[in-house]
Amino acid sequence: MFKQYCQERCKLIDQQLAKLMQSNNVHEAVIFDAMQYSLFAGGKRLRPLLLMAAADAVGGNGQKYLRIACGLEMIHTYSLIHDDLPAMDNDDYRRGKLTNHKVFGEGIAILAGDGLLTHAFDVMLSQTEVKPSRLIQVIREISNAAGPCGMVGGQAVDLVSEGKILDHETVKFMHQAKTGALFKAAIRAGALLSDTDDVKLAALTKFADCFGLAFQITDDILDVVGNQDKIGKPIGSDIRNQKATYVTLYSLEEAQKMARQVVDEALDTLRGFGPEAEMLRNFITYLLAREN
Amino acid sequence: MFKQYCQERCKLIDQQLAKLMQSNNVHEAVIFDAMQYSLFAGGKRLRPLLLMAAADAVGGNGQKYLRIACGLEMIHTYSLIHDDLPAMDNDDYRRGKLTNHKVFGEGIAILAGDGLLTHAFDVMLSQTEVKPSRLIQVIREISNAAGPCGMVGGQAVDLVSEGKILDHETVKFMHQAKTGALFKAAIRAGALLSDTDDVKLAALTKFADCFGLAFQITDDILDVVGNQDKIGKPIGSDIRNQKATYVTLYSLEEAQKMARQVVDEALDTLRGFGPEAEMLRNFITYLLAREN
Repeated sequence: MFKQYCQERCKLIDQQLAKLMQSNNVHEAVIFDAMQYSLFAGGKRLRPLLLMAAADAVGGNGQKYLRIACGLEMIHTYSLIHDDLPAMDNDDYRRGKLTNHKVFGEGIAILAGDGLLTHAFDVMLSQTEVKPSRLIQVIREISNAAGPCGMVGGQAVDLVSEGKILDHETVKFMHQAKTGALFKAAIRAGALLSDTDDVKLAALTKFADCFGLAFQITDDILDVVGNQDKIGKPIGSDIRNQKATYVTLYSLEEAQKMARQVVDEALDTLRGFGPEAEMLRNFITYLLAREN
Repeated sequence: MFKQYCQERCKLIDQQLAKLMQSNNVHEAVIFDAMQYSLFAGGKRLRPLLLMAAADAVGGNGQKYLRIACGLEMIHTYSLIHDDLPAMDNDDYRRGKLTNHKVFGEGIAILAGDGLLTHAFDVMLSQTEVKPSRLIQVIREISNAAGPCGMVGGQAVDLVSEGKILDHETVKFMHQAKTGALFKAAIRAGALLSDTDDVKLAALTKFADCFGLAFQITDDILDVVGNQDKIGKPIGSDIRNQKATYVTLYSLEEAQKMARQVVDEALDTLRGFGPEAEMLRNFITYLLAREN
């Protein structure tokens, strides 16, 4: 049932994304081609799905906020294109496909990222059925999570820390900013767009923190025990690059135990929610079994 | 008087930008340092000044919209950082200073651009004293002008056209998208934020088109007859890079004549405006005399 739910919602998201990615003329096609390539390269649409599931969890209708959901996916995709660049992680493959700069060249890949990020804001600002002041609040949360105090800031710390031994506090900031912040914004956006009350918003905020942490721990575990074909890139890169991960800082067993604990904690924050939060529960449980 | 007006407004803009560029902790300082470097590297603040002058021209108060104005400058600055990268124009100097990647390295320069672009939206969305629905409309115009259908799209065409002979229509799209679109958004934003009527908005839109064109022509002229010290980078780069410019497509004299004609046309669109549009008139006349 969870799988079917995800498939159906992914179809909606992909259809909307395809509509939002049409160029108006031959000149614009240059950049839209490169943007489309990465946007339709097998992403799991996790952030849009979480936004929708959070809206459902507070009694809203997640499908109403498809444009904000798509904007989140565009922001996530831009970050992957830039992360893969030679000046950053220098990856040739992602999800088993050539990275954007390997296909289109570095210059166009930089611009494809810029284009996705900028277009994401236009798309999100075009969301209807939301009070304008609420829309502004939600998009500010998303820009904060994606910007220099969030994702971009975390990536910068990661970049300047290469080859250095980091203290625990820096590693925590880095993970929270790089990946946790956007998950949190996605989940809070779903709740805020549905005009939830403060108690439920606080619970979902805590759930989101757990989700980000569980995602990071299971990501680190996958880099050690994952299946290369399913992940779509070589495993063991964290160890080769001497990165501080939950597996290297603790141990594989300890990390697996921590992941289970954080997932239990997340499920606990949803105790006051009814069956409408079932998909959100499924999402966090799925992290323990994920293969990519 | 025009000079003093610009100096006073630039001071306001710079003070606001400085406030908006403060990091909250040592981790965020990594990215904010790189963002600040380019933001305070001698920019003329032309786009924020134009937004304010357009608001004044329709009887509004330009100084009220300082945050949107600063957002425009942040978007402009991000585009310069990315344009200067080795994978793009590969420039070592801008305005007489080392470019961002020469100081901070390519990876951080890419992220500094990403950070400025993302932060710009948060800053613009925090503009008060504007009806939320109007704010959304204005920021959508700006994101359109900066995105794949505007600045980023124009830059992509420029990049894939290197060394090719372009038809007139492609050159026109490229210029309009690369530089004209953001000027137009700045001027229209000032008018829209001040709740102007359709007649004045149409006049200012035409003025903005002329401004973008006059800026491009005078930019091409400066690349031939400009003073290297005042521009802050070597002149003659368009000819060396075999770029299609108004000087290479026509002649220096012809380009100078065209610039004067476009400026006259722009002044003509402001005929129905009173003394409150005087600064806008000054801005377009200044293009004919600009040295950088």
